[in-house]
Amino acid sequence: MTRPKVLLAPHMRSMVEIFADQDIERLQSFAEVLWAKDEPLPDTELNSLIGDTWAYVAGHPAASAELLAKAPKLKAIIEVAGSFPSTIDYRACFDNRVRVLSCAPAFGEQVAEMALAMMLAGGRGLVAEHEAFRASAEEWQHDRPDFDFSLYDQEIGFIGAGSIARALLPLLRPFRCRVRAYDPWLPESALRQMGCEPASLDEVLRASRAIVVLAVPTRENEGLLGANQFASMQTGSLLVLISRSHLVDFDAMTEAVKSGQIQAAIDVFPEEPYDPAGPIRQAPNTILSAHRAASIRKNRQAIGKMVVDDLEMMARGIPPNRLLSAQPELIPLYAST
Amino acid sequence: MTRPKVLLAPHMRSMVEIFADQDIERLQSFAEVLWAKDEPLPDTELNSLIGDTWAYVAGHPAASAELLAKAPKLKAIIEVAGSFPSTIDYRACFDNRVRVLSCAPAFGEQVAEMALAMMLAGGRGLVAEHEAFRASAEEWQHDRPDFDFSLYDQEIGFIGAGSIARALLPLLRPFRCRVRAYDPWLPESALRQMGCEPASLDEVLRASRAIVVLAVPTRENEGLLGANQFASMQTGSLLVLISRSHLVDFDAMTEAVKSGQIQAAIDVFPEEPYDPAGPIRQAPNTILSAHRAASIRKNRQAIGKMVVDDLEMMARGIPPNRLLSAQPELIPLYAST
Amino acid sequence: MTRPKVLLAPHMRSMVEIFADQDIERLQSFAEVLWAKDEPLPDTELNSLIGDTWAYVAGHPAASAELLAKAPKLKAIIEVAGSFPSTIDYRACFDNRVRVLSCAPAFGEQVAEMALAMMLAGGRGLVAEHEAFRASAEEWQHDRPDFDFSLYDQEIGFIGAGSIARALLPLLRPFRCRVRAYDPWLPESALRQMGCEPASLDEVLRASRAIVVLAVPTRENEGLLGANQFASMQTGSLLVLISRSHLVDFDAMTEAVKSGQIQAAIDVFPEEPYDPAGPIRQAPNTILSAHRAASIRKNRQAIGKMVVDDLEMMARGIPPNRLLSAQPELIPLYAST
Amino acid sequence: MTRPKVLLAPHMRSMVEIFADQDIERLQSFAEVLWAKDEPLPDTELNSLIGDTWAYVAGHPAASAELLAKAPKLKAIIEVAGSFPSTIDYRACFDNRVRVLSCAPAFGEQVAEMALAMMLAGGRGLVAEHEAFRASAEEWQHDRPDFDFSLYDQEIGFIGAGSIARALLPLLRPFRCRVRAYDPWLPESALRQMGCEPASLDEVLRASRAIVVLAVPTRENEGLLGANQFASMQTGSLLVLISRSHLVDFDAMTEAVKSGQIQAAIDVFPEEPYDPAGPIRQAPNTILSAHRAASIRKNRQAIGKMVVDDLEMMARGIPPNRLLSAQPELIPLYAST
Repeated sequence: MTRPKVLLAPHMRSMVEIFADQDIERLQSFAEVLWAKDEPLPDTELNSLIGDTWAYVAGHPAASAELLAKAPKLKAIIEVAGSFPSTIDYRACFDNRVRVLSCAPAFGEQVAEMALAMMLAGGRGLVAEHEAFRASAEEWQHDRPDFDFSLYDQEIGFIGAGSIARALLPLLRPFRCRVRAYDPWLPESALRQMGCEPASLDEVLRASRAIVVLAVPTRENEGLLGANQFASMQTGSLLVLISRSHLVDFDAMTEAVKSGQIQAAIDVFPEEPYDPAGPIRQAPNTILSAHRAASIRKNRQAIGKMVVDDLEMMARGIPPNRLLSAQPELIPLYAST
Repeated sequence: MTRPKVLLAPHMRSMVEIFADQDIERLQSFAEVLWAKDEPLPDTELNSLIGDTWAYVAGHPAASAELLAKAPKLKAIIEVAGSFPSTIDYRACFDNRVRVLSCAPAFGEQVAEMALAMMLAGGRGLVAEHEAFRASAEEWQHDRPDFDFSLYDQEIGFIGAGSIARALLPLLRPFRCRVRAYDPWLPESALRQMGCEPASLDEVLRASRAIVVLAVPTRENEGLLGANQFASMQTGSLLVLISRSHLVDFDAMTEAVKSGQIQAAIDVFPEEPYDPAGPIRQAPNTILSAHRAASIRKNRQAIGKMVVDDLEMMARGIPPNRLLSAQPELIPLYAST
Repeated sequence: MTRPKVLLAPHMRSMVEIFADQDIERLQSFAEVLWAKDEPLPDTELNSLIGDTWAYVAGHPAASAELLAKAPKLKAIIEVAGSFPSTIDYRACFDNRVRVLSCAPAFGEQVAEMALAMMLAGGRGLVAEHEAFRASAEEWQHDRPDFDFSLYDQEIGFIGAGSIARALLPLLRPFRCRVRAYDPWLPESALRQMGCEPASLDEVLRASRAIVVLAVPTRENEGLLGANQFASMQTGSLLVLISRSHLVDFDAMTEAVKSGQIQAAIDVFPEEPYDPAGPIRQAPNTILSAHRAASIRKNRQAIGKMVVDDLEMMARGIPPNRLLSAQPELIPLYAST
Repeated sequence: MTRPKVLLAPHMRSMVEIFADQDIERLQSFAEVLWAKDEPLPDTELNSLIGDTWAYVAGHPAASAELLAKAPKLKAIIEVAGSFPSTIDYRACFDNRVRVLSCAPAFGEQVAEMALAMMLAGGRGLVAEHEAFRASAEEWQHDRPDFDFSLYDQEIGFIGAGSIARALLPLLRPFRCRVRAYDPWLPESALRQMGCEPASLDEVLRASRAIVVLAVPTRENEGLLGANQFASMQTGSLLVLISRSHLVDFDAMTEAVKSGQIQAAIDVFPEEPYDPAGPIRQAPNTILSAHRAASIRKNRQAIGKMVVDDLEMMARGIPPNRLLSAQPELIPLYAST
């Protein structure tokens, strides 16, 4: 019996970045590996290999209806960058029973950790008071009266309650927080079962001492948080912007921070790299981070492990279990960023 | 029946800082309150009031054998600063069956929170990369290869496993850390029951990616961590100094940080305020904090609550339960700082 | 805009059994409800209503390709008995993009609770010693030397690690158990992430003090546990049979119990009702239960809640989230019991 | 330097029952062991050995003021049966700075496990329905409408919130119970910190579906639960009697069970062994257990481990940490049972 062929084209990532040796060996034990180079896969090569390919794993998989028509053996397209790309014809995939899978779940814990780091650093003034210390202007045994807070028994708000929220909730549990979550894609009971309290966006904004933006960008949530929303937040409360800047009016947020209305910890920016003279750079009461929520290199091999885990199951006729399957209903709702 | 008299002299703290209104009311429901002013209690006043006093609550209670001899009704001395002061004649208290109680447990959660904030901020490069961002020198989607790490599945070391460790362990649990703890005052099985692995100091130093100094200062642990100890730590590992600087050779630590051998998050200093030109101020890979681990003002009313809780029990003939009772064996072992 | 039509035919269950008033009201706020009676839905009625039906909810939904051909608006078939019935043409459903959903997740917690109850009752001799007490033959402060054990720090085995296992694991966590799990449908890393240790069937049998049978019946696991398997279990260890008797050779199990090789807690039987003279009825060291793992009537309204939750999402164009979606790969693997 | 002498007289327990080999070896590494036989220690022997003894460990230590006067080196009396005996002159011990320690904490987990086993078995009808099954009178897929309940999201009551409650609470946490606790020896905030809700006895009785009696017997709680109290409980609710029968009017409880007002799981009896014709023996809806909450033999070596742990600390001048220290305030409050 011939082994299924797996086409590996991880560019912009590299092979060693995402695959540990043992995972590549495991993959080779049940599949034949094609390409497997760090360079971009040329179109001609893709067109010639796809006919035999059972699973196509890529940094940015290109999959038009035309290409799919040439791929009778194809059962799975797996992206290893972190989100469903617009270069795939999803309808054609669903029609051809090709599963489209995303490695996004490999980042949940790491991103949740960064969100907690930012919540704690913001609430306890770690960055602001370090800057004061560097400037020999620190005050001893002092708290920032408007900005400091403890997470214990605190009111927390989530905007979005998907896989990052699922990873963040266990980290917050020992602090006995009350977490209100706004997520129009989840029934109230699902939020309750996760341990959140379902809430409207307005309630989340008004009631929370710290608000974490965790939602994926959709056609409906662009600029969800603007001047009015920041004005409705509690004075001195903390905004943690961790999923995408798509959800905020960045200028309005910058204003809200500079005026002292809120503090902010920001990992994502409207353009990256961000303008070296951009106005948030010197704003007080900010924590600035250059898209580093998923930056721990060592943990990126979790991607390869999940890819091989799911291919191993699929080779045995069992559905994938670790990666995120594209859902026909949701694909049209995602923002094409 | 007359109500017992409770002498409140919170200086250097203030009445409203530590007592919520409802706790003072609760206290007054079963006891008569004396002094209860923010100013220092003059010695003459103390000498005249102590004869009737059942419980003496103070920022820095002075209690010589002489004073105790004048206090036939005294059953409890309670300090509200955070550690057992050397101004008490403990032997005389034990002989007279006067309980000496410390409010230290009121700080456990807050200090544990700061320790976790520092562990996460250190491991995820939050402060260093913020400084780079301020200087428009940030690198995008980047990790600091030698210094960054995730707490998930990480090797952690504790030096000291008392009440702060007890509050910190539940915060670390969702990260699935392996925690090695060195604490000569606890049996191995007590450490295991807490969820730590008992270890020698040397093992803790060699095996851990992050080490948290949590021990109270004793006659035996002064300068426990010196040049040799820092050299035995893993390159790039993180030292979190949270309990007292008494445990480290501060100059050697500064050297170890400046050389790039370790990174450090430091909340306590050999002298406070720290020298405005002190050498750690501009060291790379540091997080500097001006003794702020217990600085959340709002949470300081936990002290008053615990004081009234225990007095309420004692008034009914039940032992105190919330504050820390001085133990005859340990008092002589504490460093007199 | 017309509201989607939902056909409710819960027989053999009843309307009030599965739907709380507030859930029916919630359903009616966005959908038009058809039938909604406790009696069986006659075929003619089904055939006449299905043409307008958007979602078909039934105790035992019948859905041939022929019926589906008459149902152009149908988007979901939801069963409310607890498992995917063989009366549905799944292939036709997948081809027509009709989601098939099962209410099985509504039972996870209740069944997990029963499994824990049986593990504890078995390990602590609750039933055996109660029987002795009834017979005035009890021994005081005594343990059953071969059969009694504590769950604390115990070696536990799972056969199957699906949704019941997922609900059972948090109940076992405070006991610090080491749980080995055998599940050929899950990658090792998925088991590890759940908190189990992946193991072969043989390892599970040999290493465990208590083994819980949690797997759904498949074409491959019929009679998985026979005489040889029971012989390889530790003497006096406990078998908890909770999912389906399909997985065991019931006669061999009865022998193993009667010989004293193992003890057993049994909730499912090869035929139900079980033979009034069946040999397991008087066997020692057994706990016998008449298929009661999901018997708590009050909790059955969780089914209706999940049904309405998912219909509410689907009406808004969001995928279902609470019920179990039939997977094309798995349907052919289930045993047709 | 001479090693301290430890007198081991475990009768009615035996040496091997409570001491694992490695713990005895550990003890011998820092102390000289005296007696160490299973037989009762004769008084003459005790009188002759006590003069040199540093720690006296016994099943039922006898320690009159007279004996203490002959024991200038004595620093600790440790009982290994499970409660503070009335054969010790506690006042003399406190005056002579002799610590009196109880091994009760060694039983917390085991007893909590039995309490949970009984709560689950009661709520899920495990014993009653097993009895029906034995009699071929079982009903299939049936619940006992008045008596069955799930622990999930349930209202639970504790009478007493000491060390057993502390071990039981983590076992209940995954069930999301609301636990009301009545304990006059603890401040409300201590109960809240444990995760209970402070309540009056009356509230506990009225609001709970299952009530667990966990309190130690005191001079004040004899017969705390009588006919009026059982009448105020919810119909069909469950009483778990696990600490001591001292707290209940046993005849009234028997009546309440026989009338169908409550169900009961009973591990402790007014006299043990209990009358072979006693009226509770054939009562319906009972779970009867012959004082077996701490009966797991294997776990009894936890006693010896705790004894050696604490002696090891004390030999190094550190206070004991694992065993329970007698508190001057509480000793006079315990019932002399």
